[in-house]
Amino acid sequence: MDNLHIGFIGLGLMGKPMALNLHRSGGSLVIHNRSQEVVRELADLGMTPAASPREVAQQTEVVVLMLSDTPAVERVLLGEKGVLEGLRAKSLVIDMGTTAVMPTREFARAVEEAGSDYIDAPVSGGQIGAIEAGLTIMAGGRTDAFERAKPVLSVLGGNVTHVGGAGAGQVAKAANQIIVGLTIGAVAEALALTQACGVDAKNVREALKGGFAWSRIMELHGQRMIDGDFEPGGRSETQRKDLQQALDLAEAVGVELPATRLCRGLYDELIEQGGGNLDHSALFNVIRRR
Amino acid sequence: MDNLHIGFIGLGLMGKPMALNLHRSGGSLVIHNRSQEVVRELADLGMTPAASPREVAQQTEVVVLMLSDTPAVERVLLGEKGVLEGLRAKSLVIDMGTTAVMPTREFARAVEEAGSDYIDAPVSGGQIGAIEAGLTIMAGGRTDAFERAKPVLSVLGGNVTHVGGAGAGQVAKAANQIIVGLTIGAVAEALALTQACGVDAKNVREALKGGFAWSRIMELHGQRMIDGDFEPGGRSETQRKDLQQALDLAEAVGVELPATRLCRGLYDELIEQGGGNLDHSALFNVIRRR
Repeated sequence: MDNLHIGFIGLGLMGKPMALNLHRSGGSLVIHNRSQEVVRELADLGMTPAASPREVAQQTEVVVLMLSDTPAVERVLLGEKGVLEGLRAKSLVIDMGTTAVMPTREFARAVEEAGSDYIDAPVSGGQIGAIEAGLTIMAGGRTDAFERAKPVLSVLGGNVTHVGGAGAGQVAKAANQIIVGLTIGAVAEALALTQACGVDAKNVREALKGGFAWSRIMELHGQRMIDGDFEPGGRSETQRKDLQQALDLAEAVGVELPATRLCRGLYDELIEQGGGNLDHSALFNVIRRR
Repeated sequence: MDNLHIGFIGLGLMGKPMALNLHRSGGSLVIHNRSQEVVRELADLGMTPAASPREVAQQTEVVVLMLSDTPAVERVLLGEKGVLEGLRAKSLVIDMGTTAVMPTREFARAVEEAGSDYIDAPVSGGQIGAIEAGLTIMAGGRTDAFERAKPVLSVLGGNVTHVGGAGAGQVAKAANQIIVGLTIGAVAEALALTQACGVDAKNVREALKGGFAWSRIMELHGQRMIDGDFEPGGRSETQRKDLQQALDLAEAVGVELPATRLCRGLYDELIEQGGGNLDHSALFNVIRRR
């Protein structure tokens, strides 16, 4: 990583610790962010601020994006003073946010037509994973581009998988979000029934340990439900957005996902009740109250 | 276990290997089953056949039931020539099948009024778990009765948990079945979407390994979906029955389980399409075909 000039755009809850990990591993970082406070903080540590995504691209070989949604990626990449305006020949753009699949394929095409490589590499593991460089990273794109991105990605997470061509990382992330949301729903219904029967949910969680019903969600989010601790973690509002994005994708490719649709509706209810900023395991509250 | 006289009623796919494990560990078994073929086979190994559940109870201190459904338990326990007619004072009855919670509480009361102990101790882990003595066992009943049952249960499985009072084991089993069924649904929708996007589901499963979306179901049943191998394992017909039993229980205690209801409906579809004898992971077929 020594002397590799890495651009990093989007220094939020996830982006900031990821940029710090790249900096510590020897990368020379050029950063850009809408809010300036974090930029000043990271500049004090030796990173170089740039006034626009274009200027980031002009000064680097690899540009990492960690933005909140698809419109933000489109703006930063294709908009005025965007990455594409400043991109050097044979650069590499890595989008690590959760971006819709169909636009991702367009972004990849635009960057490749400009003579550079594009990798979509969304992550799972939350802020803790970002801080501890323990992210699960699902990458899509051409094999040679993935090989180029791998040293950078390996700094950020332990499990880096090349899933397929452009957009395949985002497909894997959609699959991830479907499973996380629906498994939270499954654990919520099971524990709500348990409590309604007057049985201690803690004991049921213990009894299921290691069996067919066991999952990372039961381990972590089942415990949150039992404790009534819904400090995020992953926000319900984000989970709903991700499920809706998966449903939009499903419609685009002609597959119906009835359980995902129902789960999205349960998150709608949770958010209507004011739970949008709670951890996604607060779905338990929607089940319990009926 | 040496010289403990154990009755075993119900020698099917699960009961037969469980009886064999008790026999090997030194128990003196008295057995009864509707079909006589397995009885002859086990008698050749040294177990003692009895003509009725009553006769089993007359000759033993502990009576284990491993029957297919709640009506069978009621018949064997309370029916003519049933266990209750032959029960010695201070015996112990252990029901290890998946039996409805409300009737289980009645069965416990009837046995306790006859001066004996009752434990509900349903299992998870399938035939493999039964053969390898690796069952997960969820027990409900009085603490002293559980302590009495524990040496017997420990021969059959590694994870034996006392969940709570009478019926609590069956509540845990209902929770188990909800989570297993709904997690299969979650993995099915995620992998169906993956394939509809033209992405290799094998790679997505690999990418999610160890992350928040990881579960025993993804590990085992996700692989079955990818391989299209729906040889049971656990039958879809049984999964539907268990989900319906959980829904009936939910109704009895006044909690609504929308995702469980939807999942039961998907199993209805699978069974209508002729998939009742396929492994429950064949739910994948219902999603895929839309």
